[in-house]
Amino acid sequence: MEYQKSKTNEVKRGAKKASYNKKVIHSILDATEICHIAFIVDKKPFVQPINFGRKGNKLYIHGSKKNRMTDALINSKEVCLNVMLLDSMKLTRSAFHHSVNYRSAMIFGTVRELKSDANKLEGLKSIINHFVPNRWEYCRKPNKNELDATRVLEITIETAAAKIADSPATENKEDYKLDFWAGTIPVKMICEYPIPDEHLQENTAIPEHVLDFYELRKMENNTPANNKL
Amino acid sequence: MEYQKSKTNEVKRGAKKASYNKKVIHSILDATEICHIAFIVDKKPFVQPINFGRKGNKLYIHGSKKNRMTDALINSKEVCLNVMLLDSMKLTRSAFHHSVNYRSAMIFGTVRELKSDANKLEGLKSIINHFVPNRWEYCRKPNKNELDATRVLEITIETAAAKIADSPATENKEDYKLDFWAGTIPVKMICEYPIPDEHLQENTAIPEHVLDFYELRKMENNTPANNKL
Repeated sequence: MEYQKSKTNEVKRGAKKASYNKKVIHSILDATEICHIAFIVDKKPFVQPINFGRKGNKLYIHGSKKNRMTDALINSKEVCLNVMLLDSMKLTRSAFHHSVNYRSAMIFGTVRELKSDANKLEGLKSIINHFVPNRWEYCRKPNKNELDATRVLEITIETAAAKIADSPATENKEDYKLDFWAGTIPVKMICEYPIPDEHLQENTAIPEHVLDFYELRKMENNTPANNKL
Repeated sequence: MEYQKSKTNEVKRGAKKASYNKKVIHSILDATEICHIAFIVDKKPFVQPINFGRKGNKLYIHGSKKNRMTDALINSKEVCLNVMLLDSMKLTRSAFHHSVNYRSAMIFGTVRELKSDANKLEGLKSIINHFVPNRWEYCRKPNKNELDATRVLEITIETAAAKIADSPATENKEDYKLDFWAGTIPVKMICEYPIPDEHLQENTAIPEHVLDFYELRKMENNTPANNKL
């Protein structure tokens, strides 16, 4: 299943790196906690990082009632967001061919504010479970005051594109003879072992959902290939 | 020295986490390879990741001659960009208080295209040396054809704000008695040992500037504190 190509999402530069496959795009979204959202205030563009949730082709973000970004998104009813995972830095003999391997997902969606408590809870559940899978079951759910203080927005992905670079560096043939070092520096976003809160009773076991998340993201298991399909 | 506060850059939500200190903001910019840039095309907001260079309060980005983003920035003459470093995930007993420690820098700048070869080379030098410090000395400089194919934009930071969260998790007093696990998962962006290009002669030593970069970014040395002032 693919997201439809349009003038908005079609990758023009480096089209060979493009994918419109839903599974590929969703897997990039799920490999990171933070996305960057573009919005317009007073005709000027802004970009802000925020965490998010995903359920199928719907994304969820939340914010307080007074928030420049959620105000702007509710008014415009449209959003563009990006997630980017850096996988390696490619150092070439020529300055020109320095580049990176990465996975980027560009999302174009429509926005609606969730108003009912039931819908807001579903959105927040998705955000918490995207943060750490299955976490929602193991924490206190938002009460009425907390829900009332929180805005939850649902983004329907209308169109999207991934751009994935995972190739060796390019180099001009005549540059191979130059006496400069060239190579690749792998880059990883990893998690370290969870640190229990100091108010927990001593020897409280770290629960399975937290250890599962750590296993997925720890140094040894954190390769781009593991995050791919 | 601080960037001046204005309606645009003043942090409203979580103002305690804000800093306008130039050294703090520049150190966040220098701790990462990639920024996210917001721009407007056909009255719609877009966000795109890109690498960049920095020299004082000037940033540099580059792109090919045909590029939606650089076109938009040259036309608007203004830019908003963000870099965000995730430092830890804070899991609390309540869903509501889940949050992250992070360092984010929000930059508002004016844009001009560099036209002369000398200025473009200075901009590209800054980009390559931001990628890996001192790298410019150890690679082939762009030739005339490569320069002609490349657009280089200079961004003057007009105003900016950092937002830094590096505190323990918040929790409602009455929630401490709940039987849910709480704690912190440290997150790090790290580099692995450089992998020499296969076309290098065997036993070519990895140069000092590459090893220095690796030392700075490797697992053991990569703590938020090391990237701070």
